[in-house]
Amino acid sequence: MVSTPSRARSGTAELRSNPDVTDSLITIIDLVRTKLATSRPELGRISNFGRSIVSQRVEEAIELGLLVEGDLGESNGGRAPRVLEFNARAGAIYLAVFGAKHVGFAVTDLEGAVIASSHHSWDIATGPDKSLTFMKEKIAELVEGSAAPKPWAIVVGVPGPVEFLSGKPVAPPIMPGWNGYNIRENLEPFYGAPAFVDNDVNLMALGEAKILERTENMAKLDLIFVKVGSGIGAGILSSGKVHRGANGAAGDIGHTSVVGDSSAVCRCGQVGCLEAVAGGWALVRDLERAVEKDPSGELGRLFAEKGYLIPSDIPLAAKAGDARAVEQVIKSARTVANTVASLVSFYNPHIVVVGGSIAEAGDLFLASLRQVVYSRSLPLATRDLKIVPALDNHQEGILGAAQLAIGELFSRTWMRTWLPEGSPRNYTPV
Amino acid sequence: MVSTPSRARSGTAELRSNPDVTDSLITIIDLVRTKLATSRPELGRISNFGRSIVSQRVEEAIELGLLVEGDLGESNGGRAPRVLEFNARAGAIYLAVFGAKHVGFAVTDLEGAVIASSHHSWDIATGPDKSLTFMKEKIAELVEGSAAPKPWAIVVGVPGPVEFLSGKPVAPPIMPGWNGYNIRENLEPFYGAPAFVDNDVNLMALGEAKILERTENMAKLDLIFVKVGSGIGAGILSSGKVHRGANGAAGDIGHTSVVGDSSAVCRCGQVGCLEAVAGGWALVRDLERAVEKDPSGELGRLFAEKGYLIPSDIPLAAKAGDARAVEQVIKSARTVANTVASLVSFYNPHIVVVGGSIAEAGDLFLASLRQVVYSRSLPLATRDLKIVPALDNHQEGILGAAQLAIGELFSRTWMRTWLPEGSPRNYTPV
Repeated sequence: MVSTPSRARSGTAELRSNPDVTDSLITIIDLVRTKLATSRPELGRISNFGRSIVSQRVEEAIELGLLVEGDLGESNGGRAPRVLEFNARAGAIYLAVFGAKHVGFAVTDLEGAVIASSHHSWDIATGPDKSLTFMKEKIAELVEGSAAPKPWAIVVGVPGPVEFLSGKPVAPPIMPGWNGYNIRENLEPFYGAPAFVDNDVNLMALGEAKILERTENMAKLDLIFVKVGSGIGAGILSSGKVHRGANGAAGDIGHTSVVGDSSAVCRCGQVGCLEAVAGGWALVRDLERAVEKDPSGELGRLFAEKGYLIPSDIPLAAKAGDARAVEQVIKSARTVANTVASLVSFYNPHIVVVGGSIAEAGDLFLASLRQVVYSRSLPLATRDLKIVPALDNHQEGILGAAQLAIGELFSRTWMRTWLPEGSPRNYTPV
Repeated sequence: MVSTPSRARSGTAELRSNPDVTDSLITIIDLVRTKLATSRPELGRISNFGRSIVSQRVEEAIELGLLVEGDLGESNGGRAPRVLEFNARAGAIYLAVFGAKHVGFAVTDLEGAVIASSHHSWDIATGPDKSLTFMKEKIAELVEGSAAPKPWAIVVGVPGPVEFLSGKPVAPPIMPGWNGYNIRENLEPFYGAPAFVDNDVNLMALGEAKILERTENMAKLDLIFVKVGSGIGAGILSSGKVHRGANGAAGDIGHTSVVGDSSAVCRCGQVGCLEAVAGGWALVRDLERAVEKDPSGELGRLFAEKGYLIPSDIPLAAKAGDARAVEQVIKSARTVANTVASLVSFYNPHIVVVGGSIAEAGDLFLASLRQVVYSRSLPLATRDLKIVPALDNHQEGILGAAQLAIGELFSRTWMRTWLPEGSPRNYTPV
């Protein structure tokens, strides 16, 4: 489906000499890529371009390997038009989403469909060199096994704040050795493709938006993804785009002050932080103390078996009816809810998505949280508000990473630079 | 400077038949309007358009009355090029910024420069019919006295939440009679121009951004404007654009829960709201009680003189050394600061601007607020954070209203619809 180099080159020369053509070509490709138009007549109707402009641009896009011609479409009385499709296999996206203790790798096409993926236990604290070498090995395995196209973009998610433009983690508390490490500089020459680095919860928020896209207008979607795992963090979308803030620190809500309980000591050194009251590590700390004294219930059994507890034990025990686990899940949900209520009044999102290991207690967590948010937020801000559980934390991160790359690669500004060459390979983001 | 109708029409026909031309024309006009280019050679360098395309588009823009040719510019060795300027007087922006008890009117050019303005006491509670009739009268006076051009846009700011697209206030607590009132429907047929309606604090945030534009990159500016007046509200900018949220309610932080004091009864019916502890009306309530018992100090004198206090008496008395006023200003600042600290961790803005009558206590308010925010927010989120006082509440609202209109009128999407006609008059926003 990809054009031969010589044919592509002749199109290229014209494109470079005439930016008007580049602009209308971008419009045509985008209408097909986003499935707003699937045939030449439809392209004409929606773009207002004349018939000859449409067919010239479509030819150019086919030469560049970005559009492909499919079967005959439905007839509208006359001759049935050929269906046009975006060539999602023109390139691939290689991605890695690192959590604190695990990592997911995937290779997707240019629409974000997963071609191959794998998931591994991995300690982010082993540092960037070992982690990125591991990534290269595992991605190579995925690519080999799947005959994936060459990469058009690389995406890395990490569990800490990131300076998005430079691709460097900034003072990430649980990522020793990563502070200021230039991930882009490591990956771009290796893959010959632009690399994007972002916080993992930001990617989960983007992934949720992709899932919600079927029912919501993504271009206008204001969303907050709240992750209640070992720590607590948020990913924020503003009009469907990640809001990263001035230092890439936006969403770091784990250390905001909590109404009421202000005696809990936090691992950050302050007292009264949200995490120190409602985070998985704080619940584990309190529950381990409790089961040492009284080893009853499911938590007692788990502790006797392993000698320790982890955050995901708590929702499991709560579902098995352990009273102390239930109590802690409700406490966590109500405390998180107070913070979320303030954020809802401030930010007025369409949707709050709740994920993370503690939130996996399901309805128990969600119902307690909803109750507080709906009673404490401004009525207007909750009038249409939906509070929904996350679908699957690993899946969301991978979906979101692909969406991030697609949004950047096919932005009009950036397409202007790479389109005349036919692919963004060897172009780095500005 | 405005072209004759017949000449404009011939250009129009070509524009309509060729969207490629419209797109490059928008690029040319925008480069001159935003002062990125001031001559044909500069336009060529920056746009990458060839010399003949640049000069054709410039001619068309001059025919449409949007660009004007000025003096000879600096020579670069050869013949000195003519300076190109955006014709800011091609149209005007008529605007009104209503507060609870006052209103500012202005007529500006298409760059936001004020041609004429006035300021009046006005009670928003008189309702939309009387308020908008008053607006029409006063705007007519401004236009008559200044020979302002025809309006290209109307902007109205109101002290409550607004559904931006429809231009309707939604459940505004201090604006009886305005709930759901269609302001656009009232103004658009009257002025024959599109009307935009927004919350007043949103406009102030935009106005501050315009002021900060000289030193900050507005396109990337994340800003929170906190207004501590009688009530408490915030205006939020995300990448230089107003973040309004799902229901236009974003920024309504006055009724979020406050850490610590949870006994104060709020006018909204809840307890422990930020406004009920730190808002001007709550301070007045507490101070009136106090001076009734003990009429000493500047507040005692003001109360004896008038029989009541208003929020702006408090910073005045504090500056005169009244101990109770000083205490209340510090209490307000520290309470607001706790909420702002959470917002800073969540949103990671570049700048927090603090305005409103209570904040007019100046350094006393600002220093107390800064102290708490810098000690309570995430270190990374405050690393480059600036917390600055607002310049002038009235001026900011007017500046911001003009910026809002300019941003909408000259957005690429919307320019595509009106540019072939030469002006956005009689085009309504979608």
